[in-house]
Amino acid sequence: MQKISLAIHGGAGTIIKNKMNPSLEKKYLKGLKDAVNEGYKLLKSGSSSTDAVQSAVENLENNPLFNAGKGAVFSANGKHEMDAAIMEGKSLNAGGVCGVSSVKNPISLARLVMDKSEHVLLSGKGAEDFASLMNCKTENEKYFYDEFRHDQWQRIKDTDKFQLDHSPKKTDKFGTVGAVALDSFGNLAAATSTGGMTNKKFGRVGDSPIIGAGNYANNKTCAISCTGSGEFFLRGVVAYDVSCLMEMRGLSLEAACKEVIQKRIKLIGGDGGLIAVDNKGNIAMPFNTEGMYRASIDFTGKEIIEIY
Amino acid sequence: MQKISLAIHGGAGTIIKNKMNPSLEKKYLKGLKDAVNEGYKLLKSGSSSTDAVQSAVENLENNPLFNAGKGAVFSANGKHEMDAAIMEGKSLNAGGVCGVSSVKNPISLARLVMDKSEHVLLSGKGAEDFASLMNCKTENEKYFYDEFRHDQWQRIKDTDKFQLDHSPKKTDKFGTVGAVALDSFGNLAAATSTGGMTNKKFGRVGDSPIIGAGNYANNKTCAISCTGSGEFFLRGVVAYDVSCLMEMRGLSLEAACKEVIQKRIKLIGGDGGLIAVDNKGNIAMPFNTEGMYRASIDFTGKEIIEIY
Repeated sequence: MQKISLAIHGGAGTIIKNKMNPSLEKKYLKGLKDAVNEGYKLLKSGSSSTDAVQSAVENLENNPLFNAGKGAVFSANGKHEMDAAIMEGKSLNAGGVCGVSSVKNPISLARLVMDKSEHVLLSGKGAEDFASLMNCKTENEKYFYDEFRHDQWQRIKDTDKFQLDHSPKKTDKFGTVGAVALDSFGNLAAATSTGGMTNKKFGRVGDSPIIGAGNYANNKTCAISCTGSGEFFLRGVVAYDVSCLMEMRGLSLEAACKEVIQKRIKLIGGDGGLIAVDNKGNIAMPFNTEGMYRASIDFTGKEIIEIY
Repeated sequence: MQKISLAIHGGAGTIIKNKMNPSLEKKYLKGLKDAVNEGYKLLKSGSSSTDAVQSAVENLENNPLFNAGKGAVFSANGKHEMDAAIMEGKSLNAGGVCGVSSVKNPISLARLVMDKSEHVLLSGKGAEDFASLMNCKTENEKYFYDEFRHDQWQRIKDTDKFQLDHSPKKTDKFGTVGAVALDSFGNLAAATSTGGMTNKKFGRVGDSPIIGAGNYANNKTCAISCTGSGEFFLRGVVAYDVSCLMEMRGLSLEAACKEVIQKRIKLIGGDGGLIAVDNKGNIAMPFNTEGMYRASIDFTGKEIIEIY
């Protein structure tokens, strides 16, 4: 029988254990468990990896603990500017959106871009127009309002500082969610979604919605979703870098991931991590930060849910 | 003495010889000659490859014959939505913009993103706000108005058809400009700029402003600027693909370019071409379409200006 595997992440960075409230930690672990199980249940029942990664990411987008969808941070203009991408390893079809404000689940809009448009990446108001044409579910500002996120923004909004999710230093915490899966047909898929950076200005776009940078899937190699200092992941073309090391140098998934996260991205100053699954169902979840919210269930049914 | 080399392109596609008016062909050839010489003059006088590629692309952006800057095509909303990116091979620093409407030279704004912001990619109104903060030169709609481009748009604006630059079929002609260079310090750089597709909708973004897809530079390997069916170039991560084949498989520039343009991108249905220069000053300008507006001057001073 074809092996199935799924992994998810909820962001990487400095997650200092003694600053983490035990009841909050419990909530994070439950959120990860729920999302990974939702995706895995689909895989087990014969759904495609594309459906599984979309479903797992929607679950994380609906959880206010994670910086994506409902939990998206505030941009400098007091709005939410969300990005997402999805890719299928069999066809190399892909879809992405950047700078959307009202779409409940940006990953579902990325899926519609892949399935229903001739395009790969739609941006801003144009992407919202496409969402409206597709009857994609939207929410008002109240839905995306969260007191904690609003306080984060208020603390820094009149400064020039950017803030990546929870923490004052840009290297401290990266807010992105993602999922990668191998399905029972042997097809890989990857999905990534983010609310960006607190107090983000100038329509900044990070690596999350960019095919090859924050998200990539190819049946020849692996499926990857990244989380980290987006600018460095863009310059390092990180997700495709892992795939190329496997395809062109013959590295294993684990060796390719280690090379990229512990060496190549660090050389240019990048912090973060990624989740990956290869076409044999192996899973890797490397990071070069203090922690990464992550969970996986492999083909043996073994479940991992970890933060540090 | 360190070798210097520069290559430029003005788009690829079906450029049918007998449909080309001889006086128009002369204008295209002159436009290419002017731009390649402007960039090369800078390299020869000791300027950086970054300055040379920016200058050559600005020259092409100011020429209404090419779909970038002044010659940008009309989007579905009757405006111009331009994209550009620039990257330096030494530092792997990069900057890009997408969906800007009023900036005279989008490549100069991409340069400012690289040099003056902490970001790599800015989009839409936010990118325009950054342009304004940087005192980047803007122009009004009259500057970008061109009767030929307007007629192209009028002919299809009430249909759902997209049109890539001059021609009715999306595979016929791709409108992008770009430059790649090796300077006397041994540093590579790449720059790419586009006006997108006629009657473009939904804030579509192609490969041009995306690092790794339409534009890439790395002193370890080469500098690349692409032109073609943007969606396929995004999915193929084409520019970085060439670099990886050189770095990880040890292919020559020519062999890597051939592999990507004649095989890998065609496998997923992509049409187009690219220009590339490696860290030894070798130049490659492959395309899988009937023509590509292109020019180069290599380290021997040999000038090539060709369309078919």
